[in-house]
Amino acid sequence: MAPLKPVAEALADICANIAPLSPEYVPLSQALGRQIEEDIIAGTHHPLSDISAMDGFGVRACDTASGKALRIVGESAAGHPYQTALGEGEAIRIYTGAYAPQGCDAIILQEEVSEDNETITPPTPLEAGRYIRPRGGDFARDDVLVKKGETLTARAMALCALGLQNRIQAKKKPHIAILSSGDELVAAGGIPRYGQLINSNAVFLASALRQAGAEVTDLGILSDTPGALTEALKEPAHYDLIVTTGGASVGKYDYIVHDIEQSQEMALDFWKIAMRPGKPLIFGHVGKTPLLGLPGNPVSVAVCCFVFLRPLIGHMMGRTDLDVQEQTALCTVDLNENDKRRDYLRSIAEQTPNGWQVTPFDSQDSSQMHRLSQANALLIRPPHDPAIAAGDKVQMALLPDGF
Amino acid sequence: MAPLKPVAEALADICANIAPLSPEYVPLSQALGRQIEEDIIAGTHHPLSDISAMDGFGVRACDTASGKALRIVGESAAGHPYQTALGEGEAIRIYTGAYAPQGCDAIILQEEVSEDNETITPPTPLEAGRYIRPRGGDFARDDVLVKKGETLTARAMALCALGLQNRIQAKKKPHIAILSSGDELVAAGGIPRYGQLINSNAVFLASALRQAGAEVTDLGILSDTPGALTEALKEPAHYDLIVTTGGASVGKYDYIVHDIEQSQEMALDFWKIAMRPGKPLIFGHVGKTPLLGLPGNPVSVAVCCFVFLRPLIGHMMGRTDLDVQEQTALCTVDLNENDKRRDYLRSIAEQTPNGWQVTPFDSQDSSQMHRLSQANALLIRPPHDPAIAAGDKVQMALLPDGF
Repeated sequence: MAPLKPVAEALADICANIAPLSPEYVPLSQALGRQIEEDIIAGTHHPLSDISAMDGFGVRACDTASGKALRIVGESAAGHPYQTALGEGEAIRIYTGAYAPQGCDAIILQEEVSEDNETITPPTPLEAGRYIRPRGGDFARDDVLVKKGETLTARAMALCALGLQNRIQAKKKPHIAILSSGDELVAAGGIPRYGQLINSNAVFLASALRQAGAEVTDLGILSDTPGALTEALKEPAHYDLIVTTGGASVGKYDYIVHDIEQSQEMALDFWKIAMRPGKPLIFGHVGKTPLLGLPGNPVSVAVCCFVFLRPLIGHMMGRTDLDVQEQTALCTVDLNENDKRRDYLRSIAEQTPNGWQVTPFDSQDSSQMHRLSQANALLIRPPHDPAIAAGDKVQMALLPDGF
Repeated sequence: MAPLKPVAEALADICANIAPLSPEYVPLSQALGRQIEEDIIAGTHHPLSDISAMDGFGVRACDTASGKALRIVGESAAGHPYQTALGEGEAIRIYTGAYAPQGCDAIILQEEVSEDNETITPPTPLEAGRYIRPRGGDFARDDVLVKKGETLTARAMALCALGLQNRIQAKKKPHIAILSSGDELVAAGGIPRYGQLINSNAVFLASALRQAGAEVTDLGILSDTPGALTEALKEPAHYDLIVTTGGASVGKYDYIVHDIEQSQEMALDFWKIAMRPGKPLIFGHVGKTPLLGLPGNPVSVAVCCFVFLRPLIGHMMGRTDLDVQEQTALCTVDLNENDKRRDYLRSIAEQTPNGWQVTPFDSQDSSQMHRLSQANALLIRPPHDPAIAAGDKVQMALLPDGF
């Protein structure tokens, strides 16, 4: 029998066989929250032209030195600009947000002047630029609006719109297909009859992978018959990754490995991983599309998602924040010596004045989803870890928000 | 002229006039990340029946004491249960995840027995329950699976599916309609001509309100003509809130207030708020639907969203995490005495060994979206705040993730 493969080695082998994804262009309307792959450059000045910051009269500052009355020759309102240059001795009515025409370089407030319907008399000489928002005063064409690597915020979305950048180069989201194998499975929403089981793995994976930034297509349930996988994966090129659950063992009715071995389109690696919970892990390719086959047990699926799938999505997107983040904590209970498998114990972690402490649940049966759901951390024990006494330091990883 | 209305009083008045939303039922498939409004109760046991945890043979434990051979009478595979009770001296082949029939209360592993095709001989007397996952061992019918107030995680999603809970009572997301007023506006994606401006406010609000948990419908751009608002809001009952931008002033081409006053369906409050940036704020009702009218300036819209709209969404959803969270920081620069308006200065905040310090940008013009986009905090100055010297304590609020 081949030796058990260590977790870190398995993850490294998987990542070495899957290339990070190329960036993609997305319309601005779909770019909120996406990580930017290249600097976003302003395609225009903002404002596009000099703009009045107030309601009042637009004038030439140089005409206000003499104290002479200025003729009102027209108006500039938002969306209805005065189209010609302002001549000597001329003024226009102007409103907040309206374009200031050529020559108009100062605004007199309504309340600052005496007005008949035809002329105004400026009270004092005005400085050029008064109450004018100058062309390019917010940003100029070719300014960097959002830097590569940043995540697009609501404010940055508005900035891209103002800068006429409507296609955004962003990290591609991996498109992951999930397939659940097992004649016993009933899709969520159905009623299981005697001998059947709700397919919670598809519900969990769709949720957890979306939370991690992937797009997910649920390809449904595979029956335990030879060829079912081959049939379901006729067009694998749509996906960046295929994830199966169940059928991964070598039992009489486990056909995932069988199908991969039989198919000319598929290539197989098949590992026993030194971890608990966790069972044989399938890694292979369907055409050029990588396939990761997880066990069928719900708790094993969740732990494998945490240990392998989230870091793999991070690898594909060039992110490290989806990696398992181990930290030290004080264990509150005694634990026996560990065997040859890396152990992930469902636990409650608490922050105390002395740092983190962690308490594994008494029962660690890998069918207990309720326990897993109540856990906020996994206590991680390396292979052959000696016995732990209450108060000893151990390694743990907090489960991420939304997981 | 009416006195300026303080910010806190305006927000309190708005919230007093808008009721928190009733909960709604959503299908489980749309419930990820939603806040749960009532305990989620298991509708069934899980497992539904006793299940084999291993591949092997299912037997009656009481039959193994004698060491006699047991007859193989059938098989139970996942999804294909053995349908009758196990009789005395009988065994079945059984696979991981398969139902254990009535009477079958122990599993013998394949490798533990010598087998011909018709009988097995159990090596030693077995305890009842061996390698059996008992009915209800994960959770029992009527157990609380997820507690009221919790946010639905991927794991909790799987748990709901297993518990046959496919309709989830969740906090309703406010459905907010946004309307942008102004003849100068061009929808994002278009090319502004002379005198025009990209409508970045709709892009910003749609993004920021979605980030805050709302559903957003963009009703487009209103022209500066009387009746345009009335026409756009013929069926306001679809929405929990209507937000307008622009047209809120009392200028010649500002028709929002005019339309509300003219309509029999609409009721108006109109306030000048003691804040900067910020301008007259419209608050009223269209039929029974509340309407909040913001200024047209992009920076004012963003600050009003932070100060009024996010807390209002929180109020409607029964959440306080969207409120402005003020904290103390050391100001790194001198600032003049403040006037009668509450001031929100776009700033960079940094955490130092001495706590937070905050540096407002030199230029605070309310047209500068690029500056706003670079800020990570607003330094908040109360009305009539005395002059600040570098090193003095001030109040600030960090801008939230994604904002």
